Amino acid sequence: MSALGRHVLAEVYGCEFEILNDLKKVEEIMVNAALEAGAEVREYVFHKFSPQGVSGVVVISESHLAIHTWPELGYAAIDVFTCGESVNPWDACNYLVEKFKAGHMTATEVKRGIMEGLQKEAVNL
Amino acid sequence: MSALGRHVLAEVYGCEFEILNDLKKVEEIMVNAALEAGAEVREYVFHKFSPQGVSGVVVISESHLAIHTWPELGYAAIDVFTCGESVNPWDACNYLVEKFKAGHMTATEVKRGIMEGLQKEAVNL
Repeated sequence: MSALGRHVLAEVYGCEFEILNDLKKVEEIMVNAALEAGAEVREYVFHKFSPQGVSGVVVISESHLAIHTWPELGYAAIDVFTCGESVNPWDACNYLVEKFKAGHMTATEVKRGIMEGLQKEAVNL
Repeated sequence: MSALGRHVLAEVYGCEFEILNDLKKVEEIMVNAALEAGAEVREYVFHKFSPQGVSGVVVISESHLAIHTWPELGYAAIDVFTCGESVNPWDACNYLVEKFKAGHMTATEVKRGIMEGLQKEAVNL
């Protein structure tokens, strides 16, 4: 089964309010997570909400990283989506958990772009 | 079981090369999908790859939409992540499938930020 991408959906709990509510800090951690995993950063945007919370996305050559934080709950929803063989999304996840000082994380990897049809066509040639 | 967000992961197949490879067209469709679903658009960034492909993200007050296209395969990986009650991510998905002229789509909704611990605490009060 051939897939174009690997997408890790991570639920990160038990983080410090101050980190999750600091736009510059969240941005720095997310960009560095991409670099740490060996990704090439293309663009990024982050937004601070009132009274609290940060949302942001890092577009990488290999797909994207995204985060939404609920500082009042110590929670962040994080996505790390990579394609190709050069970047392992779990490297970015492990870095994020450490830097956000998470109490615990639950995460799932989903395969994206499963090209079963293409494989069958190739076999039929 | 209380969740903070709804995240639809959509695999969109059978799209036209010309649409999936047109940065401005992809950007327009993604931003309009957010608006069509009643979301508030905060920021967006899109990037065109060589020789083909577009990646981009729309940050909305209610979370984000993301897309990565493989025009040569007629395929796009699309995410629609919303929180709150006011926006239904499937409204955005349906709009996207129509505008990308998709042959077919497979999609899954994942609940994000399941706050079981908080619920239990609330019950124990």
